[in-house]
This record gives sequence, C-alpha cells and structure tokens, in this order.
Amino acid sequence: MIKPRTTPGVMELLPRDQIAFQRMLDVIRRNYERFGFLPVETPVFELSEVLLTKTGGETERQVYFVQSTGALEQGGQPELALRFDLTVPLARYVAEHEHDLAFPFRRYQIQRVYRGERAQRGRFREFYQCDIDVIGKDALGIRHDAELPAVIHAVFTELGVGPFTIQLNNRKLLRGFFEGLGIADGERQALVLREIDKLDKRGADAVRATLTGPDFQLADNVADQIMAFVQVRSTSHADALARLAALGEGNATLAQGVAELREVLELLKAHGVPEKNYAVNFSIARGLDYYTGTVYETTLDEHPQIGSVCSGGRYEDLASHYTKSKLPGVGISIGATRLFWQLREAGILSTAESSVEVMVGLMDDARLADSLDIARRLRAAGINAEVQLEAKKLAKQFQYADRAGIRFVVLYGEDEATRGVVKVKDLRSQEQFEVSREELAAAIKVELEQQRAMGVR
Amino acid sequence: MIKPRTTPGVMELLPRDQIAFQRMLDVIRRNYERFGFLPVETPVFELSEVLLTKTGGETERQVYFVQSTGALEQGGQPELALRFDLTVPLARYVAEHEHDLAFPFRRYQIQRVYRGERAQRGRFREFYQCDIDVIGKDALGIRHDAELPAVIHAVFTELGVGPFTIQLNNRKLLRGFFEGLGIADGERQALVLREIDKLDKRGADAVRATLTGPDFQLADNVADQIMAFVQVRSTSHADALARLAALGEGNATLAQGVAELREVLELLKAHGVPEKNYAVNFSIARGLDYYTGTVYETTLDEHPQIGSVCSGGRYEDLASHYTKSKLPGVGISIGATRLFWQLREAGILSTAESSVEVMVGLMDDARLADSLDIARRLRAAGINAEVQLEAKKLAKQFQYADRAGIRFVVLYGEDEATRGVVKVKDLRSQEQFEVSREELAAAIKVELEQQRAMGVR
Repeated sequence: MIKPRTTPGVMELLPRDQIAFQRMLDVIRRNYERFGFLPVETPVFELSEVLLTKTGGETERQVYFVQSTGALEQGGQPELALRFDLTVPLARYVAEHEHDLAFPFRRYQIQRVYRGERAQRGRFREFYQCDIDVIGKDALGIRHDAELPAVIHAVFTELGVGPFTIQLNNRKLLRGFFEGLGIADGERQALVLREIDKLDKRGADAVRATLTGPDFQLADNVADQIMAFVQVRSTSHADALARLAALGEGNATLAQGVAELREVLELLKAHGVPEKNYAVNFSIARGLDYYTGTVYETTLDEHPQIGSVCSGGRYEDLASHYTKSKLPGVGISIGATRLFWQLREAGILSTAESSVEVMVGLMDDARLADSLDIARRLRAAGINAEVQLEAKKLAKQFQYADRAGIRFVVLYGEDEATRGVVKVKDLRSQEQFEVSREELAAAIKVELEQQRAMGVR
Repeated sequence: MIKPRTTPGVMELLPRDQIAFQRMLDVIRRNYERFGFLPVETPVFELSEVLLTKTGGETERQVYFVQSTGALEQGGQPELALRFDLTVPLARYVAEHEHDLAFPFRRYQIQRVYRGERAQRGRFREFYQCDIDVIGKDALGIRHDAELPAVIHAVFTELGVGPFTIQLNNRKLLRGFFEGLGIADGERQALVLREIDKLDKRGADAVRATLTGPDFQLADNVADQIMAFVQVRSTSHADALARLAALGEGNATLAQGVAELREVLELLKAHGVPEKNYAVNFSIARGLDYYTGTVYETTLDEHPQIGSVCSGGRYEDLASHYTKSKLPGVGISIGATRLFWQLREAGILSTAESSVEVMVGLMDDARLADSLDIARRLRAAGINAEVQLEAKKLAKQFQYADRAGIRFVVLYGEDEATRGVVKVKDLRSQEQFEVSREELAAAIKVELEQQRAMGVR
C-alpha cells in the first residue's frame, strides 16, 4: 500500500475551493477576451536548447527538466524542460509563427508554469500565470500601454476583491531623472533602483543610509532628491498630471518618459477607468532589466502586505534570441495560484457555492424517471442539476445538498404528483414554493438571475 | 540565434484554431457541469513512487520523468513524473482526500496528460483528456451507468459533429456468454476478446480463422456462435431489448450482465436520449482488463474510420494501491486533442470566427477617445471588442478584420459624428446599418443572438 500524497509546493483543492478558483480564472479569461485578446496555449515543455537561451543564472537553476524513460536510461542532457514563465514560450511562439500572425499581435495565455522552488509556505512549484501581451512588429505605439491597465481594472473590479490601485511609472522617466542627478551609468542606476525596490521592506531611513553610505557614496542633497522623488504617490488624475509637470524640463530621456506617462494617464481616463483606481508611483521600477518604458504594479488598498497582484510593463524586443525581427511589446501577468492563496489567507475569498445549482431529490425509487425528466428540463434551460439516483431519507438528502453548497432542492413525491406540481426549497433563504413541472426551470432562472444581479456569488 | 521550434508530438495552434479548440473544451466542460459534476485539477507531476505503483510494463516505458537542475546534478532516480492519464491521479486524489469528499463523488477533470510516444502523425505526446467519473464508497448502483451516456449525448449533440452512436455492452454479459460456450478461463476469454477487438481491422473471416486455428482450437459451431454474437448491433430501443431477450436464460453471470444492460437502456430512454443515438454492440470489450461491467464506445456514424471518440466503463475498485476502502466507479474520457485533430482532418471542423466580435475602427486620431468610449459600452454589455488604436486606411482596417474573422466593424468618423450615429458593417452579410451610440450594444447583441439561435458558429 502506497501513501497517497503530492509533492510539496503544489496547490491541490477540494471541489468547492476548485470551483472558487475556476471562477477566478473564468473572470480573468472573460475580461481578457472582452478586450479582444486572442487565446494561445503552448506545450508544457519546450526543447531545453530553445528554453534556456542563456546558460547559468538564477532561472536555469530553478528549471525542471523532462526525460522519457528511454532517454533517462541512455543518460545525457535532458532534451526537454518545463516552462518557467509564459514569456519565453510567447517569444518562441511569435518568432516561430511570425508569418501567420497579424501585428500588433494581441494574445492571452492562461497556463501553469513550473519552478523548482524550495518548499516554503506560499511558494509554489506549479502555479497559474494569466498573461496578456501586445506585440508589435518594428514598432508599437504608446497607446497600447494604456489599454492594459484598463483590462486590469475590468478584471479586479469583477473579481470583487475590494478597492485596488494600479500604480504606474515609466523607466525612461526614471532613467532621465537619475541622469539629471549625474547617475548616468546604466548599471549604477540599476543598483540604486534595486535599493529603492526595498523601500517597503527596509523603510526610507535604511535605504537613504545605504545610498549615502560606502556602496553608493551619493551626496546628501542627491539622496534627498531621490528619496523625495521615489515617495511620490499621486492622489487623483489632476494630481498625477501635476506631479509630472513638477518634474520640469529635464533631459530628453526624462521628457520622453514624462510624455509617455502623461499619454497613458489621459488614455486611461478615456477608457473610463475611475481615477481612484490608478496612481503615479515613481518608486515602481520592477526588478527585471527587461522593461524599458511603462511599468505597472497593482495593489489591494486594504491589503498592502499582499504586494503586487498584477505587474508588467513595456519591453523593447521580445524574441531577439529567435528572430532578427524587432518585436517590441507590452504585457501584464496575474499569478492566479498565488493570488487565490493570498486572498484566502487574507479572508477576502471564501469557499464558493457549488457549481451545481439544483439537486433533484428522490423519495421513492418508482419516481426516478420523473426525476430524470425534471433534471432534463432544467439542463435544457441551462441550469446545472444533479439527480439523487437512490431514494434516501429526506433529511439525509437535504444534509447532502447543504454540505455540498447546492442552493435548490427539488422534490416530486406522491403528494406533489397528485397535485401536479414540484416543490422547490431554497436552502439559502429557507423558503419553499411549488410550481408546475413546465414552469420549474423558468422559476429557478428568475431566482438565479436575481442572485447574479445582486452580485452575490 | 536559435531556431524557434517545439518538440514533435505536440499540438500548438494558431489563434483562430485555438479559439475553435477552446470552444470544444468549453462545450465539454459546460455539459459536464450541467449534469452536476464537480471540477478537480491535479498537479501535472506526481511523485514517481505514487504514480508508478506497478513497475515495468507498457505504461512505465512511456512515462516522462521530471527533475530539477539540482536533482539532475546529484543523479539518482527522478522523484517526479508527468501524469500519463487522469485515472491514476483521480485514484490518488480520492484516496488522499477520502474523508473530505461526499460519495458518490462526481468529478470532472479537463487537463493535459503526457506519454513518451514515438513521433508519428496523429500521435500526441501531450494531449487533453476530458474525464468524468462517479466514485462510490463500498458500492455504486447501476443507475449511474446510464447517466454517463446521457452526458455523452449532450456533449456530442452540442459539438455539432453530425450523427453519432453510443455503443453499449457489458463485460459480465460477455463473460457469461463465453462461459456458456465452455470458455471459462479468464485469461482465455481475454485472448478471444482481444481477437474480437480486431474485427474492424482484420475482418470477420480472418478473426474466425484465428479462433478455429492452432492458437484457440475452437470448434466450428463455437466459432460460429461467437461470430454471430459479436456482430450484433441493435437498430432501435426495442431491437436492443429484443437482442438481450434473445440471449436466453444462460448462466448467472450472463443473466446479471443482461439485467444491468437492460436497466441502462431503460434509464437512457428516461434520460431523454433519442434511440437513434445508442445501440447495443456485443463486440465492444475495451482493451483494458480494468472494466468489469458496462462499457461504452462512441462513434461518428459518417466517419467510422475515426474510431471511438469517447470511451469508458464500469470498474470494480479505483484506488486499491492507496486505500483499503473499496471504491467502485464508472467513467468516460474524451481525448480532446486527438478528437480536434481528427475532426479537422475529416473536414468536420473548420477554423472558427474570432472570439473578437467587434472591431472599432479608427479613421482619425482625434476620435480615439470616442472609439474607446464606444468599445467600453460594448464590453459593458458583454460584447468582445477590439479597438484600432492607430488611424489607418479604411480598406486596411476592413482587410484586417476580415482576415482575423471578426464579424462586425464599427466606424465613427466625421460624417457619423455630425449625424450623431455610428456605422456598423456586418462582414458576414456585407450589410451595414447606422444606430445611435447608446443603442449600438443592444443592436449588436440582437444580431449575435440570432446567430446563436440559428446554431451558426
């Protein structure tokens, strides 16, 4: 006998939690499609040579390699590896299918990715990423950078996770600002930015001390300007524009960053995103050197400890390892597994009602054919229905439905048959009503629609 | 520069094909949920020790093993392996979570599985399986065996793949029949059944010759009875019952198989499955020794060469490797990747329309804010809309929408602005109409509803 168990670092859910998680993925997908993004799925494994274009490095150490039994016996380097994000597979996909795609190419991809993380609470070795990217050929206008926050707004509004803020910044603006302070070297900027990324964790004083300390040796007034700059958070649309204006003329890089961010802000307004849901935050840099322009992070106002729930930005060239074509892009990613886990930990998400909306009970085996007919009518009307196939005590059947999170129990016993009705009990309101078999589906649809209209899940 | 490519044996699709495939998966999932099955997802990898309960054998040779970089360097046996079906993970899941599940446990699972197949046309190393199973604790009534074909009927009807037949048989009936002919040994029965499974490929004469030949040495009259028996295909509900009755009294095993199959047939009728969609076929055995009672195969009437598109059956004990509890079950599986590939090969499925329903064109950059507002209204009404963010020649925009499979193009230029309308062109009908901005979403919804009502995809 073998003990049934999974490897640590995976999220496996019981059905009612899986239903809640599935609803989250459905909301994300629906909104991605609403904005006209097209679905792509790639294989879970890529050829190692294609996936690992750079040897060594942090990424490679966390990679899972894949070998068939035969290959394992032969020895040698594994030919395949599991994807560790959706960006490298996207780059490979776009380069491979370049001549069959229309640009700007707007794709969404919702799949699991794999990282050989150490087992640790809240760290996952297998997790969903939900990405959207817009890829241009040769060039991609800044207007696309405003569309992604509009999608984020739609997703998080429908997820119903409370107030949230999409934090916006621009790497050119950051770069120009540092150049203006005499920190022109790209690598030095990156090191300063890395320190600034620690603001939330280490606090302003500690970061300032590092900047003026032996590692950076910045003058006090330079450190002051940096600290003031990175603590900017706009409080309204007008304030965001004023903060940009306050940066002054500056150098060409700063001016370009300011102009881009201003256009993104104006278009966000035109997209109808409420100003309470976005802000300029000059401290956002995103760890990766990958990003070159707009950068995004999204935080839940009442749960700052969760950190960013949706991040991304603009990059210069998606697939330089695979093609000579220049493919600039802009994208965002939601780490759905981690998000779901965090929302549950924070008590924002609770176990869902069942995806089964109606249970058709059975009091007498002789009425099974009636039960099946009743269920058939419900299903034909688009209602999810389960049938009790064995007659049991009523109390047991109600207990089952209640525990399973099924809202309606439909009964058709001798009494109901005599009077030509079915009985419906709403386990949520504890109310019950009777209706003819023909009108049953319509009556339950009305109740379900009311629930949806009231935003109850 | 590295050549962008995938390993052979995976199905990677361009967006419009991915949309068609996604619709297939959505239809399957929707119908599984309609019948009250609950979602389960398991990790792509299981612990090797748990996954490979039997060492050696066909299955293990096709397994993909997984190792992180660190483990690979250390050597030793891989701790993880990719699932090769959804049945073993289900067994592990049910045994692991036994005390948190309600029985009968009704789950669906739609995920990819992995087999290290030789690269070959139409053979996949990564493919979707879409499974439903009902698992009982200690016992599971025969009535559940009739529900699965009702789900198959709902799925394949909505998939719109033409006429199909769910072929039913029962392993007890088969076993009893062979016992009646003096072929009582289980292994010998299995060998005869394996020959019978080759009927479609080798033809009746060749199979009969093998049965009377040196390997089996069956008497001519026994071979005749077997050949007559396995060629039985019922042509109606009444005919199916008559075929069962014609088997006579027989032994206890035969009688039990007949009684079970009769009950399944009667309940299928009560489920409202039309009799043209099911038939008794005494040759169906299913390769696996796994099945013990009802067995199913589903074939497309006009495309018999495709073989079974949905198979399954009743088994005695799901998880004997993991738990002492007896867990009988009944299940079916649709191999969606292979099905999609075959339907395309057979010309039954064509490229889908885009998931994008409306493209909002742009003739003048000054009207971008109007475009965004128009798109916002469409999306709020549940319509998928893409906005052209850069003004281009109209002909180019129409060409793009047409190639992308987008049905409606909405235009709002100077002329429309003056008259306070938007122009809508339906690229399918080539008709166009004008409507106010406020009424646009409602007007397009009417058109889309008509399309759905007419069953056009």
